[in-house]
Amino acid sequence: MNHIKQLYGHSLALLTDLYQLTMAYGYWQTGKLNQEAVFTLFFRKPPFHGGYSIMAGLATVLDYLDGLCFTETDLSFLATLTGVDNKPLFNSNFLDYLGKLRFDCDLDAIPEGTVVFPHEPLLRVQGSLLQCQLLETILINVINFQTLIATKAARICQATRGEPVLEFGSRRAQGIDGALSASRAAYIGGCAATSNVLAGKLYGIPVKGTHAHSWVMSFANEMEAFQAYAKVLPNNCIFLVDTFDTLQGVKKAIEVGQWLRENGHQLVGIRLDSGDLVKLSQQARKMLDEAGFEQAHIVASNDLDEHLIAEFKSAGAKINLWGVGTKLITSYDQPTLGGVYKLTAIRDEPDAQWQYRLKLSEESIKISNPGLLQVRRFMDAQGKFSGDMIYDQLQPPVDEVHLVNPNAFSVHPALIEGYTTLPADIPYQDLLIPVLRKGKPVTELPLLEQIRQKVQTQLTHCPTEIKRLNTPDIYPVNLEIKLYQLKQRLISEARHVKNS
Amino acid sequence: MNHIKQLYGHSLALLTDLYQLTMAYGYWQTGKLNQEAVFTLFFRKPPFHGGYSIMAGLATVLDYLDGLCFTETDLSFLATLTGVDNKPLFNSNFLDYLGKLRFDCDLDAIPEGTVVFPHEPLLRVQGSLLQCQLLETILINVINFQTLIATKAARICQATRGEPVLEFGSRRAQGIDGALSASRAAYIGGCAATSNVLAGKLYGIPVKGTHAHSWVMSFANEMEAFQAYAKVLPNNCIFLVDTFDTLQGVKKAIEVGQWLRENGHQLVGIRLDSGDLVKLSQQARKMLDEAGFEQAHIVASNDLDEHLIAEFKSAGAKINLWGVGTKLITSYDQPTLGGVYKLTAIRDEPDAQWQYRLKLSEESIKISNPGLLQVRRFMDAQGKFSGDMIYDQLQPPVDEVHLVNPNAFSVHPALIEGYTTLPADIPYQDLLIPVLRKGKPVTELPLLEQIRQKVQTQLTHCPTEIKRLNTPDIYPVNLEIKLYQLKQRLISEARHVKNS
Repeated sequence: MNHIKQLYGHSLALLTDLYQLTMAYGYWQTGKLNQEAVFTLFFRKPPFHGGYSIMAGLATVLDYLDGLCFTETDLSFLATLTGVDNKPLFNSNFLDYLGKLRFDCDLDAIPEGTVVFPHEPLLRVQGSLLQCQLLETILINVINFQTLIATKAARICQATRGEPVLEFGSRRAQGIDGALSASRAAYIGGCAATSNVLAGKLYGIPVKGTHAHSWVMSFANEMEAFQAYAKVLPNNCIFLVDTFDTLQGVKKAIEVGQWLRENGHQLVGIRLDSGDLVKLSQQARKMLDEAGFEQAHIVASNDLDEHLIAEFKSAGAKINLWGVGTKLITSYDQPTLGGVYKLTAIRDEPDAQWQYRLKLSEESIKISNPGLLQVRRFMDAQGKFSGDMIYDQLQPPVDEVHLVNPNAFSVHPALIEGYTTLPADIPYQDLLIPVLRKGKPVTELPLLEQIRQKVQTQLTHCPTEIKRLNTPDIYPVNLEIKLYQLKQRLISEARHVKNS
Repeated sequence: MNHIKQLYGHSLALLTDLYQLTMAYGYWQTGKLNQEAVFTLFFRKPPFHGGYSIMAGLATVLDYLDGLCFTETDLSFLATLTGVDNKPLFNSNFLDYLGKLRFDCDLDAIPEGTVVFPHEPLLRVQGSLLQCQLLETILINVINFQTLIATKAARICQATRGEPVLEFGSRRAQGIDGALSASRAAYIGGCAATSNVLAGKLYGIPVKGTHAHSWVMSFANEMEAFQAYAKVLPNNCIFLVDTFDTLQGVKKAIEVGQWLRENGHQLVGIRLDSGDLVKLSQQARKMLDEAGFEQAHIVASNDLDEHLIAEFKSAGAKINLWGVGTKLITSYDQPTLGGVYKLTAIRDEPDAQWQYRLKLSEESIKISNPGLLQVRRFMDAQGKFSGDMIYDQLQPPVDEVHLVNPNAFSVHPALIEGYTTLPADIPYQDLLIPVLRKGKPVTELPLLEQIRQKVQTQLTHCPTEIKRLNTPDIYPVNLEIKLYQLKQRLISEARHVKNS
């Protein structure tokens, strides 16, 4: 099932920045059409001052690429664009070319649900320079956002220590797809369900929901409102108890709970949405337990995030289901991951020699890594992640593996010293796998449920110090020594050009 | 042109929270189907610690509502949902009912592009309780996000003091529609163009773009890259000059600019994307002027927002085109407006007596206003906005107009004192206009261009102190005295119920 086609019904090739198209036109006009390029998508800092991120969005990217083409109306629109002289930007031969274009790039990617770190290539696209360029905007958009939200969700689920988190954010999301694809990513990151019914239909995520304050307000009083709900939906009763007075509301929920029980149903729980959630949850728990509703859940909502949840749990809150909306769906404390997509190698034609590329910057963290990049993750005997190594597939490590901590060269860019040699028998896994070859899928994608499960397994293998919500340790991401040396050489060559 | 249909190709009735549907089922089952309700959409605080907001998103809402219906696959999906006993949530008669449902609510709204303030009803929906409820999620989602982004854009354009702002944010946006509808709202707020080609096609927004670092990196050197671009797109030359060394880049841009001029074209400008933008822009301006390119623009980009732009301008930056991405498209410093949608009146059947409703809260700012709310804006003789009054259309002000500053009751909730009486001849305008009656449009919507123009006119009429980017004055939003008294009465009745 292609969710992009299901949602949009047609190709979205124009979902790109205009400069991708003007550059494409330039490549086409200057005979650079057959140049083959490699681009790498990565981010530079883990979000939320955290220690890890969760890769997400790959399936959406593949849905987008599947059958991607410029439609007749796309081409007619492009024909209307003009430059400063009011003459067309693009000639009609180019538009004909675009009309016939079918995407046939190779794509390697880290599977969704994998724990990932800064500078690691999440996607690697290889193909015609023109096509790679056109894809930049959508690839960053999708991976950036879903990885951000999956990571936020994983942190929130960490804070609840395994108690289910319900994603309730649709109304506060950034647009329609800001809601839909965030629901998908939040589920990957560990949420148990969403309130968004369309996300349930599209992605198969469990959907949950009971009633709002307006249900209560539409009746003469709270008791009547709960009774009416129980009669109609006896198998879905989580009563929102704070419309007037929370503890009075709990009393009424218990009364209706007794009626439910007498009629062969159960009180699933109550929801608190305001006030002192710690104290109210303790009082509500006591009342429910004393009335024999030990199984009834206490759901809490109201601008929750991982920090507030952790605080409530430390304070002894008796909440066991967490409704999280705004802070998750918009990734409130950091609404973007800042992903980038950089040209790392180019050659004049397939089978020619690759030329390495990097983007210089005054800030060493912003200098990209050149090559056909791959990530190797080393494990200890128990399977715990002990460190990652970025290397160039054109010159892979052989026999002895030498690593350089790239943080070193922010201090001494010209020096290579103090590298680590790894034992030959250390277990490892290369993270990027082939996903598309000539535009065609070469791997079966996991189900959403499997991706969600993978996150849990991955987090189990991730060192505890890396997972701390605040001031985590920095996970070691090293450069393989030949890549490090190559990068140093290219930096000094580029600085030489710059100063010449 | 319906943009929702154009983009999605079908109705999106499931884009709602599940609890809207379970409540709808409850209303349907308990004979509350014919109850008529009024809901009001508003926000409680202006975003960004600012003094004003710009209403946006209405056209998108109407596109969404136009022909809205549950499809066969929507109903099949709903039929699969179950409660805790694994029995279906909804019976098939209800699903049949949903399948036949056509939205026929009345909608009143403040037109897009209007300057709006906290607590003012942006939308007022009147119709069957069931339908009003189903719409909550999408109405908040759309108005919340577009109003937020239009406001952010207006602030950024204020900071540039009329110099054009280009919205470049697609790649960092929250999903596909996070990009598209933000481009629309940013254009309303005052941006001159977007980089998002699909936003250009859908909404008719001007699209702009030239080239990225990767264009330069794909050539042997910068000079060759600029020359190649100039040959292919001589009418679209804004050279990105910081790939290696900014001032060297400017020199090369000037050389290619001379070639352009000799060939009957012009150098549109250069773009700076890193480094000290103030100093570099001053140096670049001097170089361009000395070479006779006084007309060439200097575009700057790199994580700009209104505060940075204001700072750069005070420091004497010679930038005259501003590219703004992440901070605008995600509304980085406040990624949601926090809009809410509250039941304010209800009656058992059309023509019956309205019963007022409000939602209590410990925090007085969170107590909603009851009634069929309208906003009256008073102007001074020069047309400057001097204050707004929220009133209940069921008991409109007659003859003398008495206002109460609602901030008063955060201190003394029970007291009515110190109201203001307005002169009888003060000019005013009621802001909400009828938009839909029985689901059918009753007003012609303005073009996007007209909405954008309206923002500029509205801001001219808005007091300067309200428009300050930092620590603005608070614009007076008052309650008409009868509404104030009604609200006080309902609060004490509700507190009585609560304590009984």
